[in-house]
Amino acid sequence: MTETNKIGAYKSVAEPFHVDFNGRLTMGVLGNHLLNAAGFHATERGFGIANLNEANYTWVLSRLAVELDEMPYQYEEFSIETWVENVYRLFTDRNFSITNKDGKKIGYARSVWAMINLETRKPADLLTLHGGSIVDYVCDAPCPMDKPSRIKVNSEECVSKLIAKYSDIDVNGHVNSIRYIEHILDLFPLEVYKQKRIRRFEMAYVAESYYGDELSFFMDEANPNEYHIEVKKNGNEVVCRSKIIFE
Amino acid sequence: MTETNKIGAYKSVAEPFHVDFNGRLTMGVLGNHLLNAAGFHATERGFGIANLNEANYTWVLSRLAVELDEMPYQYEEFSIETWVENVYRLFTDRNFSITNKDGKKIGYARSVWAMINLETRKPADLLTLHGGSIVDYVCDAPCPMDKPSRIKVNSEECVSKLIAKYSDIDVNGHVNSIRYIEHILDLFPLEVYKQKRIRRFEMAYVAESYYGDELSFFMDEANPNEYHIEVKKNGNEVVCRSKIIFE
Repeated sequence: MTETNKIGAYKSVAEPFHVDFNGRLTMGVLGNHLLNAAGFHATERGFGIANLNEANYTWVLSRLAVELDEMPYQYEEFSIETWVENVYRLFTDRNFSITNKDGKKIGYARSVWAMINLETRKPADLLTLHGGSIVDYVCDAPCPMDKPSRIKVNSEECVSKLIAKYSDIDVNGHVNSIRYIEHILDLFPLEVYKQKRIRRFEMAYVAESYYGDELSFFMDEANPNEYHIEVKKNGNEVVCRSKIIFE
Repeated sequence: MTETNKIGAYKSVAEPFHVDFNGRLTMGVLGNHLLNAAGFHATERGFGIANLNEANYTWVLSRLAVELDEMPYQYEEFSIETWVENVYRLFTDRNFSITNKDGKKIGYARSVWAMINLETRKPADLLTLHGGSIVDYVCDAPCPMDKPSRIKVNSEECVSKLIAKYSDIDVNGHVNSIRYIEHILDLFPLEVYKQKRIRRFEMAYVAESYYGDELSFFMDEANPNEYHIEVKKNGNEVVCRSKIIFE
């Protein structure tokens, strides 16, 4: 198999309702495009969610980290490339690069996925599933950014609370991965986004939350311009963690 | 000019993070696709926002009404056609049809737009602007649904409140048109969406709201399955009204 066939490339455009007040694509929308690209790439190669659901398995996103020099501006075209970097027994690393309208690489992303059995909710062995064919697509294209890191939040002071509503819930009945990103971005006042931009953004998905769950947000300012956020449901159980580095 | 050239057609797909727990495209996302189609159609014909901004004018959405037999399901392709139905001095009517993956018409939409001068914020005369060329595109394709109606809300009991946050704000610094739709959909419990689907949805945009504004929501159950909603900012000024008919 050629390296070219291992990499999927998907074009998009920064739609007017998908940009923020600066006219730049929001991190939530970029996350959506990254996850779509992952889905297209997997489907085209026979290990997408639709193929897996038939066999009672599904992909679960565990980690997402994004590093950017710039965000696409309103109406600008951009392209996302994605490929599988590693396959382990229980996890696979999928990487991304983001290219702007002029063909310049403006960012990279890393993600970690597990596969679970829909009935037992237990993780599946990626090296044997689907004849282990996912391994054939492993590719060592460059992804010059740090791996997703360990995120620890000490603060016990809740900075925001909300109840998961209709628009938060995806087809699996869970609060969807992108909505967490949006709710986390909303923790910061507009002033922050006027003065700074997000250089690195990380999500660690720990547990699912559901319609009606109360989500509470805890935040450490770990360093100047570096924030660690933890989202808990119904007071105690950690749902996800995030790290945001501004510049 | 041929009738064909007057109608723009734009394909799309129901992305996984754009569907609700039923696996159907959300009304907010459909609204986004409709407004994108309007933008593409206008731009391709020389009267899009980008062209206008140069001349210090912009389009302002005043009304949107959507009627649907069904919503596209997750991963399904669908297509939006749009055309200009009427041009008056201060308003233009733009219509839409929505076609499912099998080529069947599954819904229609109507919208009303004004054009304003960005400096004076005053409405512009559509019949003279851009040499009045928008009139050349008027087209009488069928749109078998009622026009946007007058919406009146009597209730003075606030059913929900929120503060406009970073993710709500568009490039003009206003709460974006799609976010109002999402916040309005979130007024209804999940149970409603389990038992019913939205047959008709209307928005009337009255005034702009901004970052930090407190939006409060008032609702009448006007008839069984018919709800009228009013959104006010900072306690008194009406921002928009909506009508939702379930079935």
